[in-house]
Amino acid sequence: MSDTQTRTVTIAAIAAEAGVSVPTVSRVLNGRSDVAPHTRERVERLLRDHGYRRRGSRPPNAARLIDLVFNDLDSPWAVEIIRGVEDAAHAEGVGTVVTAIHRRASDTRSWLDNLAGRNSDGAILVTSDVDPSLHAELRRLHVPAVVIDPAGVPELDVPTIGATNWAGGLTATEHLIGLGHRRIGVVAGTPTLLSSRARQDGHRAALEAAGLTVDPELHHVGDFSHEAGFRAATELLQLPEPPTAIVAANDQMAFGVFEAVRRAGLRVPEDVSVIGFDDLPVAQWSSPPLTTVHQPLSEMGSLAARTVLRLVRGEHLETPRLELSTRLVVRESTAPPRSVG
Amino acid sequence: MSDTQTRTVTIAAIAAEAGVSVPTVSRVLNGRSDVAPHTRERVERLLRDHGYRRRGSRPPNAARLIDLVFNDLDSPWAVEIIRGVEDAAHAEGVGTVVTAIHRRASDTRSWLDNLAGRNSDGAILVTSDVDPSLHAELRRLHVPAVVIDPAGVPELDVPTIGATNWAGGLTATEHLIGLGHRRIGVVAGTPTLLSSRARQDGHRAALEAAGLTVDPELHHVGDFSHEAGFRAATELLQLPEPPTAIVAANDQMAFGVFEAVRRAGLRVPEDVSVIGFDDLPVAQWSSPPLTTVHQPLSEMGSLAARTVLRLVRGEHLETPRLELSTRLVVRESTAPPRSVG
Repeated sequence: MSDTQTRTVTIAAIAAEAGVSVPTVSRVLNGRSDVAPHTRERVERLLRDHGYRRRGSRPPNAARLIDLVFNDLDSPWAVEIIRGVEDAAHAEGVGTVVTAIHRRASDTRSWLDNLAGRNSDGAILVTSDVDPSLHAELRRLHVPAVVIDPAGVPELDVPTIGATNWAGGLTATEHLIGLGHRRIGVVAGTPTLLSSRARQDGHRAALEAAGLTVDPELHHVGDFSHEAGFRAATELLQLPEPPTAIVAANDQMAFGVFEAVRRAGLRVPEDVSVIGFDDLPVAQWSSPPLTTVHQPLSEMGSLAARTVLRLVRGEHLETPRLELSTRLVVRESTAPPRSVG
Repeated sequence: MSDTQTRTVTIAAIAAEAGVSVPTVSRVLNGRSDVAPHTRERVERLLRDHGYRRRGSRPPNAARLIDLVFNDLDSPWAVEIIRGVEDAAHAEGVGTVVTAIHRRASDTRSWLDNLAGRNSDGAILVTSDVDPSLHAELRRLHVPAVVIDPAGVPELDVPTIGATNWAGGLTATEHLIGLGHRRIGVVAGTPTLLSSRARQDGHRAALEAAGLTVDPELHHVGDFSHEAGFRAATELLQLPEPPTAIVAANDQMAFGVFEAVRRAGLRVPEDVSVIGFDDLPVAQWSSPPLTTVHQPLSEMGSLAARTVLRLVRGEHLETPRLELSTRLVVRESTAPPRSVG
């Protein structure tokens, strides 16, 4: 029951072996500066040699672990967020525990039990469907939480980190209009997500600002999968008057659009311009490289980590909702339409 | 110094509030079955409500945390390994701490300090350049380690998990020969890595088994980057007699080959067949979808997690070196050469 199990040696034994007093060993363990360097070195080496484990020796309020929770680890953007969180946490000496809960109550339950068992200090949830009871539970455990890119539960008393999805959707469509496109197809994202709705509204705002009407036959709704982009684009390209450009609400659907264009015997961007959203690393590797809206996923991860560590330290947040800005990255999948170019 | 800092309430207080004995609370904490369900529920709720932290209540040798260490988190295959490790670790109630050490001594040092501080039970290193002093340090800390896909330090006394790279290289080239290709270009991987050399040797074995000679002008060496695949293929396609098929030592270089083919005004697979290695999730999203050799990255991660947890429990491993099998996944980037098809 006590933590002596994990301590193979006592502080007194270390002190005796090092030829110093017990308080000196304590000062080393607590990272105090009032210890001579060579003494510190000798004590630290003995502590390491004996496998002494420092659990409990950290000062109060200094975080040691944060939990980063995904529904699933099957998206290439997960690693972008992990990279950002790990980078910011590691810089503060904090470990990042990564968990996937697969939207299953049993996995969520066991994660909460493990979180408590390992003394995790904070949690970052990357989830489109925030469960209020989960947050209630984290509060009971005194574990502060931050949500990245929430689906839309603004009433929840939890800080959130997002991106400027509306501005990104606007910019993508403005880029196509600027190239001369007038018939622009769209494959929107999962409509229940706030981020999808914001991107979609930005798209519509750009069309309206250019005096273009929203043509329902050019509007498809997907679920962010490659298959959804492929299916929607296949239908769009079969229209009597097909679009000269297609906006996809994420990169994965944009790659599905690429494949539909290829299957139709057409080429990107000569016959159809395609634009995505996210700017995953793989967007540079597609052929042609994908023009897309950069979402700063790793920066969102870093900011989430710094925010949750501020909460652990009991600091006050200026605002509970932060949006990092998106920006257009023009590569080679967009060009003027044939009739104009 | 003791862990009372992290315990906001004593077991005695929980027992009093629940109206049970102290040993009953202990039994709940130790996960014993000899507690009535409604009693367990009441005690667990109180423990949670008071933020009681169970650190130290686990049985000896039961792991709580393992560390998963990458050089960098910038590859889409990192998330595959994370997924596999997390899945197997979570199933045993163990958290996975993900760290990137960026090949920097300072990050490695701080990671080792944090590892000791958080009482991590084991480590999985995903690294092509295993540092013997790192392993010595982990041994001193009594933290067992497993290496995934090592570069080539077989003398090291550390269990390793790999994939059958030679067989994968053989299968890829056999597939192209079976389609009728005779002039096959190759973009090999970083030559200092054992995995690259094994893939390359498998390629050569398939050529020789088919009575084909290895043509030095068809042989390029890359570094696993998109750019390396692009550059090598650009040169291959400019040869007086260009290859009809190109084998790349990983998917990322294969995508670079795709782009070189597109820039040359040619098409995959009509003009040039392309085959990769890894079968990253994005291999399904390329256009055309990539024929490639599947490397079971998430299974390698799961096996590494189970192996390190066995070491934590003091179990004996049958073999220190395990290779999981690769297999060919035929999609649409390979076809018979024009002259044959």
